[in-house]
Amino acid sequence: MWRLFHFPLCPFSRKLRLFLTEKGVPFELERVSPWERNDEFLELNPAGQTPVIVDKARGTKLIDSRAICAYFEETVDGPPMIPGTAIDRAEIRRLLGWLDEKLYADLVAPMIEERMRKRLVSREPPDTRVYREAMKAGNAHLDYLDYLVDSRRWLGGPVLSLVDLAAAAHLSVVDYLGGLDFRGHKETKTWYAVMKSRPSFRPLLAERMEVIMPPAHYDKVDFD
Amino acid sequence: MWRLFHFPLCPFSRKLRLFLTEKGVPFELERVSPWERNDEFLELNPAGQTPVIVDKARGTKLIDSRAICAYFEETVDGPPMIPGTAIDRAEIRRLLGWLDEKLYADLVAPMIEERMRKRLVSREPPDTRVYREAMKAGNAHLDYLDYLVDSRRWLGGPVLSLVDLAAAAHLSVVDYLGGLDFRGHKETKTWYAVMKSRPSFRPLLAERMEVIMPPAHYDKVDFD
Repeated sequence: MWRLFHFPLCPFSRKLRLFLTEKGVPFELERVSPWERNDEFLELNPAGQTPVIVDKARGTKLIDSRAICAYFEETVDGPPMIPGTAIDRAEIRRLLGWLDEKLYADLVAPMIEERMRKRLVSREPPDTRVYREAMKAGNAHLDYLDYLVDSRRWLGGPVLSLVDLAAAAHLSVVDYLGGLDFRGHKETKTWYAVMKSRPSFRPLLAERMEVIMPPAHYDKVDFD
Repeated sequence: MWRLFHFPLCPFSRKLRLFLTEKGVPFELERVSPWERNDEFLELNPAGQTPVIVDKARGTKLIDSRAICAYFEETVDGPPMIPGTAIDRAEIRRLLGWLDEKLYADLVAPMIEERMRKRLVSREPPDTRVYREAMKAGNAHLDYLDYLVDSRRWLGGPVLSLVDLAAAAHLSVVDYLGGLDFRGHKETKTWYAVMKSRPSFRPLLAERMEVIMPPAHYDKVDFD
């Protein structure tokens, strides 16, 4: 059995949980808090970052969410999550890079820092300037997601792909932290409601952190 | 013919130039300066980042260095650069993520900012504190590269892979900017000399930016 070392509000862990569930790969969860620099976890991954996935029986350890997804995409049957021709797959990978690097750095990471880490770990007040900048960048990125939703069936192309799972994972973390503003983004809001209604999403929406609670609409598919 | 839109000191462009040459894919170069926000280039890639590769005759455009490498790895014959079993490939991808995200953010990006962009574009003085922090992080990362060189034939495993090309691309940019200090890192220094002597590396070492010149040892394989 695969054991996934994750953190509840780590978007890369969330992406992997959605991906493994959609692929039909069974796994159990072990929660780690990256900022605790726990020795046992650092031995597993010297970079100290989630997610890491381990199969003790096989002696296999995999690190880095994109490397892990590629591994299961190559070795496991089940619906392909990087589907299509080489060109289709390049477009999916382009968008994965954009989500995991650009959207993460501009929107998700500052939200986690200001609305979670400062509150739980360093007990500093949030920096409202950083928060406002992140909301502004987020608004521009939601415009781009609107454009994608408008121009194709799913974010990455004609069929559901890892792009949809990654985007939903990132946005769900921002939403949990109260930083997702869908005003003026009807297209992405509709797409996100569809993603939230998938069975793979349910365990994520049901999970709660200590201290930090999500807004009331967070786990409601229709936002009401 | 493929046309690669690149910037001489962009490590992701350099990685791709090494990769395409090692794979035997012919391409021509077109230089762009990402900070100029040139309209024509923004139309090609709204994210405004190099590298982008285009084949006009086929109507193909690819963006994101990892997506582009995966595309050619899937479609072109020539030596595999993500070789081996699914486990071997996961290890290669883990290290690619570490190089392109962690080593880039901690060492390469601050060097480019302090020693190139500020000098060429904003004409500010460099921030010595940022520079010292980058050198310190770089030293720790070189320790990890020493460990990899010590424990396997090439950085990513028993054969040359995209990990070697990516690491050499990143370090070559730092070296051009005078920020590479190999004292105490004999293992990585020896590996880097081998990489510099590969024919694929020659065009990179011969290239010069305007205004900013590399140190005298930069294009010498034996560092003398």
